[in-house]
Amino acid sequence: MNEHRTVPDPETLIADMGARARTAARVVAQASTETKAQALQEAAVALRASESEILDANGVDMERGAANGLTAAMLDRLKLDSDRITGIADALESVAGLPDPVGAIIDESSPPNGLKLSRIRIPLGVIGIIYESRPNVTADAGAICLMAGNAAILRGGSEASESNRAIHTCLVTGLKEAGLPEDAVQLVPTTDRAAVGAMLRASGLIDIVVPRGGKSLVERVQKEARVPVLAHLEGKCHTYVHAAADPQMAQAIAINAKMRRPSICGAMETLLIDRAFAAPEALVRGLLKVGCEIRGDTAIQALNDAVVPATDVDWDTEYLEPILSVAMVDGIDAAMDHVARHGSGHTDAIVTGDPVAANHFLSTVDSAIVMHNASTQFADGGEFGLGAEIGISTGRLHARGPVALEGLTTYKWIARGDGTTRP
Amino acid sequence: MNEHRTVPDPETLIADMGARARTAARVVAQASTETKAQALQEAAVALRASESEILDANGVDMERGAANGLTAAMLDRLKLDSDRITGIADALESVAGLPDPVGAIIDESSPPNGLKLSRIRIPLGVIGIIYESRPNVTADAGAICLMAGNAAILRGGSEASESNRAIHTCLVTGLKEAGLPEDAVQLVPTTDRAAVGAMLRASGLIDIVVPRGGKSLVERVQKEARVPVLAHLEGKCHTYVHAAADPQMAQAIAINAKMRRPSICGAMETLLIDRAFAAPEALVRGLLKVGCEIRGDTAIQALNDAVVPATDVDWDTEYLEPILSVAMVDGIDAAMDHVARHGSGHTDAIVTGDPVAANHFLSTVDSAIVMHNASTQFADGGEFGLGAEIGISTGRLHARGPVALEGLTTYKWIARGDGTTRP
Repeated sequence: MNEHRTVPDPETLIADMGARARTAARVVAQASTETKAQALQEAAVALRASESEILDANGVDMERGAANGLTAAMLDRLKLDSDRITGIADALESVAGLPDPVGAIIDESSPPNGLKLSRIRIPLGVIGIIYESRPNVTADAGAICLMAGNAAILRGGSEASESNRAIHTCLVTGLKEAGLPEDAVQLVPTTDRAAVGAMLRASGLIDIVVPRGGKSLVERVQKEARVPVLAHLEGKCHTYVHAAADPQMAQAIAINAKMRRPSICGAMETLLIDRAFAAPEALVRGLLKVGCEIRGDTAIQALNDAVVPATDVDWDTEYLEPILSVAMVDGIDAAMDHVARHGSGHTDAIVTGDPVAANHFLSTVDSAIVMHNASTQFADGGEFGLGAEIGISTGRLHARGPVALEGLTTYKWIARGDGTTRP
Repeated sequence: MNEHRTVPDPETLIADMGARARTAARVVAQASTETKAQALQEAAVALRASESEILDANGVDMERGAANGLTAAMLDRLKLDSDRITGIADALESVAGLPDPVGAIIDESSPPNGLKLSRIRIPLGVIGIIYESRPNVTADAGAICLMAGNAAILRGGSEASESNRAIHTCLVTGLKEAGLPEDAVQLVPTTDRAAVGAMLRASGLIDIVVPRGGKSLVERVQKEARVPVLAHLEGKCHTYVHAAADPQMAQAIAINAKMRRPSICGAMETLLIDRAFAAPEALVRGLLKVGCEIRGDTAIQALNDAVVPATDVDWDTEYLEPILSVAMVDGIDAAMDHVARHGSGHTDAIVTGDPVAANHFLSTVDSAIVMHNASTQFADGGEFGLGAEIGISTGRLHARGPVALEGLTTYKWIARGDGTTRP
């Protein structure tokens, strides 16, 4: 078993997979909600029944990973156990129970020319997913694509190749049981990095690519892609504590936004405190007390000796750790300017008791998610009631924020006439 | 006056225009419907008042165009007269009266975590329009972008540069009168082709590029662009006459779909006749009689001596002339296969009295617009009740079919809490 299985020609491989995916996409686009759900439920059954095979495959990946010097954190992301496999199967069943967006009527109209028009939701087509070590993405992403009526081409990380293969086998079992084409969810059978390049250039074969992984993967995808990308580059999230913020609420939200899970993309990375806010010292002290490192501007440094001086780089850094940059700002416009200059368009929040200030912030700040009196850690498809998430889009087009089934659809216009010709 | 005005550095020019557009975009995104409408109404007033200046400028373009050997058709597209200027002003007023999509609530929800969520429509941001000879696009495209709350960077064809400049001056007058920033609608002040390249690479400055022009322009844009493109490549539109079609209706629709205006993108280019349809001879004869050249497969050739043999190229050709390729097909699945292989995802229609066949076609054919018992010539934003059109998208993402104000918007999520933190 080589780390990099080289196939003769990744371009040909992806072209062939893409053509088969396109054919399968036509079938799954027409499949009923029940059939798609059945495929996922049967895949969950197969996953539970294949626990020992999956653990064996994962053992091979883990051993090779340890030999190749993966860090403890990477090995933890890679590792499967009985609980995690149950979690993956549960997630499949959960996606199977989500409302099916396909076929929904977006709007209808009857212009004076006599046509009856409607816009209906249809699947996007063929979706490429490029991801890193977590093997559960194989099941999650495949399931979300399928439930929205799409075909998926999955390209997982080389370190998880055996685990991904074992999980993918269960998805294929589900597809077969439901009478859907196996090609509806394909796994790229090579860890050759050239296959990623071929996917990114597969215009006409792959309708959209979703990268799921670290910043370097997403940057490579955005740089090389000739197909559209649904990407989340980073979550440089801000919380602005306005003059009229309740001090206790501000502290509770700030601590939750940073410290609940510092490593998620919705974690706050910069706190902006209005110069007119009543209790900045307590706010900073509270964060320091729960173990957060504070990197502040001069005004914040003056509040507490434990504050580290911030450098220019800090205002643009996504730490994903218990580190927070904190700046004092002169009013809401200065706060929104800071967000516009340094934010990543992910999630930004205001804490205030003043509804006028809240609405001004919510309508002006141009991020995918804007919040009032809430923790940025809520930025998540599950918390938003979407039941799943293929990613959080920080782009402006097509879909923004948490993307689930609906974000993987588009629409077509249907025009019905009765021999209607145009004058 | 040189045909190609060379500015020192198109990259710097576009970077500067883009930065100013971004600043202006923040202002127009917050502008009220009334303010945006006022800007367009005042621009219409200025256009009417500036008729002689515009005609003078157009005269310079026409003279240079004639000297440069533009064809009569190109000169006609370039030419302005009093009626056409009135038409441009009327169109501005019409866009000013359209419903404003900005701020509309797409949906709302209250997940169990206590947040109140809503998705609201917001402008896309900065839109680049790259177009060819018709000077009315300067006003039309600028108006549609502005009314949807966006800033626009317009890059017209060199042959219309003086006319575009004169029309753009009127738009700027309208912006000033309404108290909106002049930078909200900018015209690239050079005909250097490198400026187009700079626009296509302006990621982060320009949010989307809309090419309006011939196939070679759109192909260049799609090939070079690093920013998203809202493009219409071609309209290879099909009409399928099903076995259960009413012969008279089929003939009326086919003649209208091809011959009403053969040069528009919604014109039918291929007619598919079911082998079980009752009156293929009359259908072909009717088209020949109104002056349509028919290029048919062998079955169609057998119907009438005037039919020219079709070659493989015909099934993929957008003629935009009174020429039609016609094939005999064995049933609806063969017809849909033909459309899938040769269509461009623009507009495809079925003529049938059988509602089951109609629904099968409408749900299966994967084009931006699918029609039943209607002429493909209806593929138009105005006919679809959108009141305007920036183009017809044949892509799959973001917006499909006729794109007007709503297609130039996106959304953001608003989450309201009351000190809500994530457990």
